[in-house]
Amino acid sequence: MKTSKEYKESLRLMRPNIYKFGELIKDVTTHPATKRTIEGHAQIFDAAQKVEYKDILTTISHLIYEPISRYLSIIQSPEDMIANVRMKRLMFNLTGTCTGGRCAGFNAINAMWATTYDMDRELGTCYHTRLQTWLKAAQKRDITLAGALTDPKGDRSKTPSHQCDPDLSLHTVEQRNDGIVVRGAKVMICGVAASNELFIMPGTGYKEEDKDYAISFVIPRDAENLTIVETRRPSDTREQEEGFDAPVDIGAITQSYLLFEDVFIPNERVFMHREYQYSLKAVMNFIAPYRAAIGGCVAGQGDVIVGASALMARANGLSEKVFKEKITQMTINNETTFGMGIAAGVLGTKHPSGVWIPNTMLSNVNKVHVATLPYETKRLAQEIAGGIAETGCLPSCQDINDQRYGKLLKKYLQANCSGETRAKIARLIEWLTIGSGVPGCMHGGGSPDGAKLVINANTDIVHNIELAKRLANIKEDIQVETKKK
Amino acid sequence: MKTSKEYKESLRLMRPNIYKFGELIKDVTTHPATKRTIEGHAQIFDAAQKVEYKDILTTISHLIYEPISRYLSIIQSPEDMIANVRMKRLMFNLTGTCTGGRCAGFNAINAMWATTYDMDRELGTCYHTRLQTWLKAAQKRDITLAGALTDPKGDRSKTPSHQCDPDLSLHTVEQRNDGIVVRGAKVMICGVAASNELFIMPGTGYKEEDKDYAISFVIPRDAENLTIVETRRPSDTREQEEGFDAPVDIGAITQSYLLFEDVFIPNERVFMHREYQYSLKAVMNFIAPYRAAIGGCVAGQGDVIVGASALMARANGLSEKVFKEKITQMTINNETTFGMGIAAGVLGTKHPSGVWIPNTMLSNVNKVHVATLPYETKRLAQEIAGGIAETGCLPSCQDINDQRYGKLLKKYLQANCSGETRAKIARLIEWLTIGSGVPGCMHGGGSPDGAKLVINANTDIVHNIELAKRLANIKEDIQVETKKK
Amino acid sequence: MKTSKEYKESLRLMRPNIYKFGELIKDVTTHPATKRTIEGHAQIFDAAQKVEYKDILTTISHLIYEPISRYLSIIQSPEDMIANVRMKRLMFNLTGTCTGGRCAGFNAINAMWATTYDMDRELGTCYHTRLQTWLKAAQKRDITLAGALTDPKGDRSKTPSHQCDPDLSLHTVEQRNDGIVVRGAKVMICGVAASNELFIMPGTGYKEEDKDYAISFVIPRDAENLTIVETRRPSDTREQEEGFDAPVDIGAITQSYLLFEDVFIPNERVFMHREYQYSLKAVMNFIAPYRAAIGGCVAGQGDVIVGASALMARANGLSEKVFKEKITQMTINNETTFGMGIAAGVLGTKHPSGVWIPNTMLSNVNKVHVATLPYETKRLAQEIAGGIAETGCLPSCQDINDQRYGKLLKKYLQANCSGETRAKIARLIEWLTIGSGVPGCMHGGGSPDGAKLVINANTDIVHNIELAKRLANIKEDIQVETKKK
Amino acid sequence: MKTSKEYKESLRLMRPNIYKFGELIKDVTTHPATKRTIEGHAQIFDAAQKVEYKDILTTISHLIYEPISRYLSIIQSPEDMIANVRMKRLMFNLTGTCTGGRCAGFNAINAMWATTYDMDRELGTCYHTRLQTWLKAAQKRDITLAGALTDPKGDRSKTPSHQCDPDLSLHTVEQRNDGIVVRGAKVMICGVAASNELFIMPGTGYKEEDKDYAISFVIPRDAENLTIVETRRPSDTREQEEGFDAPVDIGAITQSYLLFEDVFIPNERVFMHREYQYSLKAVMNFIAPYRAAIGGCVAGQGDVIVGASALMARANGLSEKVFKEKITQMTINNETTFGMGIAAGVLGTKHPSGVWIPNTMLSNVNKVHVATLPYETKRLAQEIAGGIAETGCLPSCQDINDQRYGKLLKKYLQANCSGETRAKIARLIEWLTIGSGVPGCMHGGGSPDGAKLVINANTDIVHNIELAKRLANIKEDIQVETKKK
Repeated sequence: MKTSKEYKESLRLMRPNIYKFGELIKDVTTHPATKRTIEGHAQIFDAAQKVEYKDILTTISHLIYEPISRYLSIIQSPEDMIANVRMKRLMFNLTGTCTGGRCAGFNAINAMWATTYDMDRELGTCYHTRLQTWLKAAQKRDITLAGALTDPKGDRSKTPSHQCDPDLSLHTVEQRNDGIVVRGAKVMICGVAASNELFIMPGTGYKEEDKDYAISFVIPRDAENLTIVETRRPSDTREQEEGFDAPVDIGAITQSYLLFEDVFIPNERVFMHREYQYSLKAVMNFIAPYRAAIGGCVAGQGDVIVGASALMARANGLSEKVFKEKITQMTINNETTFGMGIAAGVLGTKHPSGVWIPNTMLSNVNKVHVATLPYETKRLAQEIAGGIAETGCLPSCQDINDQRYGKLLKKYLQANCSGETRAKIARLIEWLTIGSGVPGCMHGGGSPDGAKLVINANTDIVHNIELAKRLANIKEDIQVETKKK
Repeated sequence: MKTSKEYKESLRLMRPNIYKFGELIKDVTTHPATKRTIEGHAQIFDAAQKVEYKDILTTISHLIYEPISRYLSIIQSPEDMIANVRMKRLMFNLTGTCTGGRCAGFNAINAMWATTYDMDRELGTCYHTRLQTWLKAAQKRDITLAGALTDPKGDRSKTPSHQCDPDLSLHTVEQRNDGIVVRGAKVMICGVAASNELFIMPGTGYKEEDKDYAISFVIPRDAENLTIVETRRPSDTREQEEGFDAPVDIGAITQSYLLFEDVFIPNERVFMHREYQYSLKAVMNFIAPYRAAIGGCVAGQGDVIVGASALMARANGLSEKVFKEKITQMTINNETTFGMGIAAGVLGTKHPSGVWIPNTMLSNVNKVHVATLPYETKRLAQEIAGGIAETGCLPSCQDINDQRYGKLLKKYLQANCSGETRAKIARLIEWLTIGSGVPGCMHGGGSPDGAKLVINANTDIVHNIELAKRLANIKEDIQVETKKK
Repeated sequence: MKTSKEYKESLRLMRPNIYKFGELIKDVTTHPATKRTIEGHAQIFDAAQKVEYKDILTTISHLIYEPISRYLSIIQSPEDMIANVRMKRLMFNLTGTCTGGRCAGFNAINAMWATTYDMDRELGTCYHTRLQTWLKAAQKRDITLAGALTDPKGDRSKTPSHQCDPDLSLHTVEQRNDGIVVRGAKVMICGVAASNELFIMPGTGYKEEDKDYAISFVIPRDAENLTIVETRRPSDTREQEEGFDAPVDIGAITQSYLLFEDVFIPNERVFMHREYQYSLKAVMNFIAPYRAAIGGCVAGQGDVIVGASALMARANGLSEKVFKEKITQMTINNETTFGMGIAAGVLGTKHPSGVWIPNTMLSNVNKVHVATLPYETKRLAQEIAGGIAETGCLPSCQDINDQRYGKLLKKYLQANCSGETRAKIARLIEWLTIGSGVPGCMHGGGSPDGAKLVINANTDIVHNIELAKRLANIKEDIQVETKKK
Repeated sequence: MKTSKEYKESLRLMRPNIYKFGELIKDVTTHPATKRTIEGHAQIFDAAQKVEYKDILTTISHLIYEPISRYLSIIQSPEDMIANVRMKRLMFNLTGTCTGGRCAGFNAINAMWATTYDMDRELGTCYHTRLQTWLKAAQKRDITLAGALTDPKGDRSKTPSHQCDPDLSLHTVEQRNDGIVVRGAKVMICGVAASNELFIMPGTGYKEEDKDYAISFVIPRDAENLTIVETRRPSDTREQEEGFDAPVDIGAITQSYLLFEDVFIPNERVFMHREYQYSLKAVMNFIAPYRAAIGGCVAGQGDVIVGASALMARANGLSEKVFKEKITQMTINNETTFGMGIAAGVLGTKHPSGVWIPNTMLSNVNKVHVATLPYETKRLAQEIAGGIAETGCLPSCQDINDQRYGKLLKKYLQANCSGETRAKIARLIEWLTIGSGVPGCMHGGGSPDGAKLVINANTDIVHNIELAKRLANIKEDIQVETKKK
């Protein structure tokens, strides 16, 4: 397994194809726009070698029978899911943010492991074998693998082939003997700059007329004809400044637009191609573990927010006990998304391919909590921390160190600690609640409205009605005409 | 294992010592005040013999190596806790209410199993051996065992020995060679009329001055000098009426006051006596599985409420799809308490005695949800069901069947079903949301404020602060003087 | 103006036509099923004569230029609406419940005052003149007037004339020279037993095919061919018992089914007949002040709940300061519905008829709060008050006074006050939160979903979009095809 | 009254004393850090001359009997408060943000109008006369007046004179014949760059030992020895970029640190000096109208958020009807803070000085809503708007216009409108929910915890207890010993 140094070296060797603010990023490990996310991902390699974290971050491969990164493993049991949820919480604790260049890739491997197994068995394809071959090598190479599902989509009321532009979802434009050529884009993809390869999955379920959109494959991040543009984050230009206004150096989230201008994918890296009838299944296989484990991620974020809030209370001269009710509520929020992740993970089912698939209902319930509870946690943090932290309402680091008036600013920022420390804490809370550190947990892994649809579809209303009728001893059959549209 | 018929027979053989409305209840299985709760508990015996429920309701004893009721088993693994949570959900589904004559007893066995083990090992007592002996026999006899913790307590700002009356918590008044004599009361005890025996535990943690209050034992429900008074429930007199105004015949909750007028307990049934330093531990051992599993119970209640609401929507001529958002929210509430129960159960630890003790943090977080979410579920049910069901605002069953105007009432009650059926549904929703069917989940298993104290005590603020400091690269140590009172 | 004695006398003189539990109630002022609501309504007359309440409960008639009950007045100004909101809060404070035999009648007068004015002006009818004549006399006679809107409705997916039975909404079956004959029912009508007359309004807006349902009139409560059946309330049979288990003697809510078996209404009491195009307007005119003023009612309920909770805390030996956060939240809930009622009342408009019509948007927003916030207030009350009060989980008054064991029960019920007092407080909280005292504020005045429809219809989305476009300097026009069904 | 051009000219004539990022801002009307807030404030002057807004933004002075800006008026009636609440909503609608250089100043005038009146009457001072003289002139000069209360405060557990540094709250260091000299700072002061003068008030109530901190006065923004440092805002450096990543040009919020290095205040501009016993009253007089009117402000923000959300839905090809439930909830939130502001404004009392002081209870309840409801509104906006808007997760304007790949980005950003328009909408929602446009409404006007203290202090628990006792016919007196600390 790689060291963090080797990991960074692997990134440095890749072809530069990432842009931000009109500039081609030559070295992602040192450029201000990308170096922090790489530091965050590098922590995974360092932590994997520490005794206390090793069991969480690594496991033994059932393919190569050696220790591998858990992020490259097949989830085979409730215990694997518990470790997954814990791993996400731990990494948020260590980086203060998302290490998004790994989670979605990890999920994509598992989702396609099950889906390709079904396809091969039912259709006689050889996708599962290909995936197995690729995965073995990937485990040995210890790559960092991002995952990509989201298409631009265009007008949400129309399917891909009815859009004004056929490229608004990623699709095949040519099939060759040795592979396929794809055009389009994947957007808002997390952790791309920190990754070696990208696992592409269909963005949603497709019908036959859109079968060219039902594709899955894996490519190097620096593949030919692939151009990557990093998106903005709130306050992202602070990353180019000196000082602590971008308060966290050892982690950052980035999200990219991947522009595919006729990218060639060799056959051995293609895991779905036009099997539209499996596209929804692939997405559902992705969603179940993702929406479970994200609860750990959000809990890890909450741990840091609780810590930062308590620290600010102390900086203000107040014990965190003053805010006991609020901290208890924040903790309840953290433990709820964590616990629901555990429960969804544990109450799963074993897929014939060997993948353990978490509970659909509980995963999707957790997605709703994940899109709701952190907002309350952040609000409470802002409430505890006071006006200075609510919107980071304090002078810039540059002003705090200004030769003319910086001394005065420090004097007036001091409370139960130095002015500079208090400013750092305020910046951390700004970053966590209204700054660059806020991850997109509302829509990450799909929207809560989507989750509610799944919840609704999985609610057995008729069973519940029968329970009620039996209790009240009601025999009459009551039907409602369902009007067809 | 007993049949439901044998179970009822066992109750009939006991000495009558239960009163309600000034009347001594001769036969609890037929008296209107108690027969419904006994029907509910009897369903446990019937269901245990059905293929689909057997694995949930029974297990193999590790003491007698035979199938026993799960309610008399030692919880030894995550799987046992999962089955416990599922069992509670199932029984609520089948009875529409609490089968409280079993859960607390089940928990008490397990809590004292661990506590007596520790006492024997550390103090050289023989409580664990006694408990083991009693439990073996109890499993063979297949008894129904209620549990009792709550003391009257008197003035909440004072400890037992500082009350105006020493009896305000249950305590030993005499120690004999062959046993102890206890005086006082246990109050609001669930399912007593449906039980054969009662497992008594200390109501809270005690200090040395209150060591006479640190007692645990088991007695027959009809012990000498024990008088039992049933409490009221909303609309409880309807149980004495004809018709469907008490809409559920196959289940009911009851709660009692147990009045101990110098009751003698033989030594072999005493499991704690004056070991005050173990009293808090006993309570905590009780709380962990109780506050986890109650999530299943509340989810089971929610299932029925969802069913009743959807049924009323249909009765009104509306598809439940009209109320999709509300039903999804109700489902989220149900699955949250269920899922948190599962997670708390799974992330536990093995006690040296063999008992599996659920996760304290998650159990207590779930207690808060259990005291909150069902209120929203009930509100939504009332919202879906309309004014007729909100407070059961419709004429009595007697009026609906009145010879003069009953026909008119039925005419005007009809909608997408007969007037009588619609009236029954309205009564069911009244019963579930504002009637006799509402269980006391706010304070059952202790108050949410108590749970919040435990959550707060288990939050590692210092760890969280260190996470935040590391991220923002803060070195300064910030202390707050904690003023001693 | 009447004294409370004269008021009761006026009720005693009426023809008995009210039934409950199959019994014809001979004297509503003494029968257990109705006497408490009449005591509540009688308090209005007593309070009106007290200096501190006079300005709230009475006003000067603009028709007869004498002091009259505010409940019989025309609301003509913001000040009148403020007094209305305050009056509702006061009456809940004094009776612990709804005095529903007056509010809806009061609203009906005002709604039809505006509606008849418009009809007369636009259609040349003489309804407004008739209403004026009747109202003058009603003010002089100082009658108690209930209001009735809600029809049985039957299948909610169908209009009245498409129901299986044409009587499922109240309608005209015959027009004579001297009046009309109506058949059908009004259901869940509040305070009927306490009233002298009933003001009937259309239950919703009707189209032409349902014009026979567009009717409004006023009748004596004891009109010929009108049969009234009282509905049940939770725990209502306690009203027939001795003792404090029905804890409030000086107030109660009742709701009735009014069965019209071809009731004749003389012309001078008919205020709408087949003018279907005014039926929705009449309802909207009713809704605006009702949904505003109900906020005062709910706040008054909350005041009592706060008091009862604090009293129970004290009875338990705890200062209410222990529950400061909860009491503050309860207060916020109370003041929110009160304040929104005031705001809706004040930001109204003057109708040409002289009626002041509150703000539609704010009234309907308040209806949503009224259907939501009291549930939280009640939950918090149950949380503060402990298990004994949560579901009234204590022995009956009869048991507490039992010669054999009553003394023991009192002993164990005592805390920081006598056992009997503590029992009374627990019963009061049960009554207020899960008993007979809970008013139907979810659906009273219409459902919150109905209110949300009105809110949505009154939201000027296009205006808001224009605000956003102007700010972000967006010129492009963005339209969405709205698909017709 | 000034035109917007004259207003800007007045700012240009002032001495530069404002810094940001180490740079002295020469011309606040053109510098990127301040020009947007000045555009926002300039809109007040433009709108005041429009027929549709004139009545809201101007009034007739009771001092000079001429039309003046409402922001310089004395609030004398409920109607004035209603206009105040509406004015705040309007200005947020027009600027998309806070015009904070006026509200606090407006409130300070009114708070000190009442406070100086009381001081003059009770102490024989001449503060009220001074204030009157200054105000007359201010009205004629039509100045823009910011207000400043918040001191740095240092350790929150200590009063000013017990801090390690006496300057941590602003205080007098010298009293001369012709005036006073003050040292210290006011921090997080809104709209300073847009103002001509600053109204300084005590930051809290003081005891005698801190009487030097009890000061109030007014100074020009460019007073000698006053140095101003602008604080950061999320994403504030975008204001220096080209393009639409700072999406709003016609409004912005700024907040400053005011550093007083021995600033001299002539006597005629001093309105409180060492009258510590009036300092709390001054603050309370400030709070009442501020916490009422801020509800209008927050509603105005919500209007824009609703508009931006609906616009994004349309841009995505979806009707806003798809999100009906969410938009209704957002509207309820908006109208609740607006309505509560109206109610607090209307139910006030007339101070002998002529000032109308809003209702303390309702104002403070509204402060809690203002610190809570907008968070839900923003969450719902992010939910409707999708991942692209949640955190502004799209490429920078510069990248969108890049010559190499900008065309591709626009292609993939298009949906039911051009890619550029969709990007602008996403930026607007980022700005409104997690960007520079988010005002500090949690702590602006004081913290919600402070408001809860006031609510609690104004809750008449004893009265509520008496209501409960009367209803349940309880005579026993129940007291709880309140332990003195």
